[in-house]
Amino acid sequence: MLKELREEVYEANMELPRRNLVTYTWGNVSGIDRERGLFVIKPSGVEYDELTPDDLVVMDLEGNKVEGSMNPSSDTKTHMVLYNEFPEVGGIVHTHSPHAVAWAQAGKDIPAFGTTHADYFYGAIPCARHLSQEELDEDYELNTGKTIVETFRSRDIDPVAVPAVICHSHGPFTWGKDAAQAVYHAVVLEEVAKMGIFTRMVDANAAAAPQRYQDKHYMRKHGPNAYYGQSR
Amino acid sequence: MLKELREEVYEANMELPRRNLVTYTWGNVSGIDRERGLFVIKPSGVEYDELTPDDLVVMDLEGNKVEGSMNPSSDTKTHMVLYNEFPEVGGIVHTHSPHAVAWAQAGKDIPAFGTTHADYFYGAIPCARHLSQEELDEDYELNTGKTIVETFRSRDIDPVAVPAVICHSHGPFTWGKDAAQAVYHAVVLEEVAKMGIFTRMVDANAAAAPQRYQDKHYMRKHGPNAYYGQSR
Amino acid sequence: MLKELREEVYEANMELPRRNLVTYTWGNVSGIDRERGLFVIKPSGVEYDELTPDDLVVMDLEGNKVEGSMNPSSDTKTHMVLYNEFPEVGGIVHTHSPHAVAWAQAGKDIPAFGTTHADYFYGAIPCARHLSQEELDEDYELNTGKTIVETFRSRDIDPVAVPAVICHSHGPFTWGKDAAQAVYHAVVLEEVAKMGIFTRMVDANAAAAPQRYQDKHYMRKHGPNAYYGQSR
Amino acid sequence: MLKELREEVYEANMELPRRNLVTYTWGNVSGIDRERGLFVIKPSGVEYDELTPDDLVVMDLEGNKVEGSMNPSSDTKTHMVLYNEFPEVGGIVHTHSPHAVAWAQAGKDIPAFGTTHADYFYGAIPCARHLSQEELDEDYELNTGKTIVETFRSRDIDPVAVPAVICHSHGPFTWGKDAAQAVYHAVVLEEVAKMGIFTRMVDANAAAAPQRYQDKHYMRKHGPNAYYGQSR
Repeated sequence: MLKELREEVYEANMELPRRNLVTYTWGNVSGIDRERGLFVIKPSGVEYDELTPDDLVVMDLEGNKVEGSMNPSSDTKTHMVLYNEFPEVGGIVHTHSPHAVAWAQAGKDIPAFGTTHADYFYGAIPCARHLSQEELDEDYELNTGKTIVETFRSRDIDPVAVPAVICHSHGPFTWGKDAAQAVYHAVVLEEVAKMGIFTRMVDANAAAAPQRYQDKHYMRKHGPNAYYGQSR
Repeated sequence: MLKELREEVYEANMELPRRNLVTYTWGNVSGIDRERGLFVIKPSGVEYDELTPDDLVVMDLEGNKVEGSMNPSSDTKTHMVLYNEFPEVGGIVHTHSPHAVAWAQAGKDIPAFGTTHADYFYGAIPCARHLSQEELDEDYELNTGKTIVETFRSRDIDPVAVPAVICHSHGPFTWGKDAAQAVYHAVVLEEVAKMGIFTRMVDANAAAAPQRYQDKHYMRKHGPNAYYGQSR
Repeated sequence: MLKELREEVYEANMELPRRNLVTYTWGNVSGIDRERGLFVIKPSGVEYDELTPDDLVVMDLEGNKVEGSMNPSSDTKTHMVLYNEFPEVGGIVHTHSPHAVAWAQAGKDIPAFGTTHADYFYGAIPCARHLSQEELDEDYELNTGKTIVETFRSRDIDPVAVPAVICHSHGPFTWGKDAAQAVYHAVVLEEVAKMGIFTRMVDANAAAAPQRYQDKHYMRKHGPNAYYGQSR
Repeated sequence: MLKELREEVYEANMELPRRNLVTYTWGNVSGIDRERGLFVIKPSGVEYDELTPDDLVVMDLEGNKVEGSMNPSSDTKTHMVLYNEFPEVGGIVHTHSPHAVAWAQAGKDIPAFGTTHADYFYGAIPCARHLSQEELDEDYELNTGKTIVETFRSRDIDPVAVPAVICHSHGPFTWGKDAAQAVYHAVVLEEVAKMGIFTRMVDANAAAAPQRYQDKHYMRKHGPNAYYGQSR
């Protein structure tokens, strides 16, 4: 079932250790088949060098396991909420990449300090609020997804234009049109999180790039007048 | 003697350079056979790429060498005290991994800034106090072990729930149910020590994660209601 | 056409990932044939591990594509301006190397903190100003080149003696007598940008090396009395 | 001539890139035959991957080239002064390793923050003063050696107990009983310089380890009562 998607999601998962984004099992990638309403996700706590495409778990959008002998990632419900609420999303990644985690642990948005950021994220990477005791007790992973959605809705951020979030005291989630692009965004996020820390070390008061720079660079790569890259 | 344990402890030692936790010979791993009351430890000052399982030294819990032609690690008595006082411990690691050493050199506990930390360590990683001149003169390594035990007892910290310590002006010790898990914890400690420094660079006043987050993440992986990973 | 130059520029491009200066496609190298007034540049958005010498694009100094089936780098006009205005330049590099980007994002010149810097750059690496809205709208990449030239002219900096610039909120450009030397300077720039950040971490008020040190080291490697290296 | 020493010094030079201590040609190692009063040193500006033992240059202690077709390292006279003034020294290394350079560029001694440092360096790594204009003009490299010697004599530091120095606005020199040990000390210096920066990031006011810790760790590895390692 979903053999091609399994392969894609497997490859995207394996890209995490190749890009040095995970230590041990600290990360997971999923990808969705929108027509069938099913997504494929890494099993919980399995080492990357032991992972096979067959180990991946197929879930529906109500949180039921449809196929697979293993437990899905403990973060599965967070992925599910994002697929339900962000219909353009085709793949999702969670990591504990250290520089992105640092911003999450500090509870601060990552400002759009420059063009590296603006090429992929149109505005700051938002930091989602802490869950309350009640939210933690009720359903931690589901409510993590809900606070991410709340963050984007209440701040009027388009999840296609800003395909990343950091969760306070926890770490980043990124997404994209498919699992591979979600991983690509996880790599970029870690890189801009690192550059942002270095920027603050050069100047503790460094601010975001002017809005006109963010507009220019985002639009150079995205939208109807994009001119970066080869015609696609 | 203890052939299987020798192999385990050898493998755990060799994991240190593979995980970039040691420069030259700056680290050692031991593992214990609780039934026999004997532990196996790296010899002192031997390069990792020259180490063989046969070089490991077998010690009893009173500090006598039981087998082996080489001198045991200079830190052997610290290991011995921890085995004697923390009966759940099956393996111990000492390294000079640089980010953990930084917190030790600053003489500060490593706060539980986020979930990466809370998944493995239930609360701050404590920093053990300096030894006095008398303690240094009497028996440095034995008394290092004693101050670690004192730190956990006086602050009412469970060494199973917080399997790591940093010793002021020195560096980290970690432990686990066996030598492999002790190394795993050494890797995690270095990673959270690094994330903690980055967190402070984002916000010099960053504080620990809320207690409810620490509870949630620790319990998600540990204890009767754990649901991370596959059933074991 | 320009077969040898193509090979040189291809090799120089491939040196960027080998030296860890680029993530994904974030960088480009060009080289010029001054006699013919043509330069060869990386195509836009092509992955380094898929790049071949034949993919490179040949441009004239008025911005016309002379040969090649692909779109040239989106930064091509910046290269063009530099070739037109700095006649000694034979090769140009743009990267998003993270420590150089940090200084660019902070909008600060990189001071000549020491001899590593002074061996290659005679004075601070200047930070070019932001473009105005009008400049961005008119022609972003062309005007980026113009602000670089303006920076060197208005501050009376010789682009041969300081073969690098950082553009505010963006990142570095370096150049040299040919494409290979431009890459060499990109590597050195990233290294001195890193050392500069570390220097500020040791002492937030650290200042540039005394002028006499900058003179001595630059002249030891450059100019009529240079005595570093083998006779050439 | 000096075939064995050539091999040793060649191997020690090649260890620099293997240990990530050099970028391009930024470093050199020498070793001395005390009986003959001759030392062997890397030629100036030669890439490590092109270096052969035959390229090394043999010098006497008055600065005359005794054998070799290439120019010796531009830092040769600094090495010569140290061999003349520090009779216990058998090998010398100069690098631009980035964390040690940071302390040099900040013009600060590297405090003995902990036991990693104290195991090899008995006290702070001193920072030698700037040369005056006259000293630079007269003979830069010779006078660099003289200020190093002045630093150790005026501050009553034993160069055997502290086999390293950093030169203000420049970088580190280390030494040892032979070329291999000098490289070993260069690796340790870079590691403690890095740990020291991290320590200051945890606590900007972090101070050196208590003297009794420095005494204990240095003596554990050195001197008549050393007990680290295997009997030698």
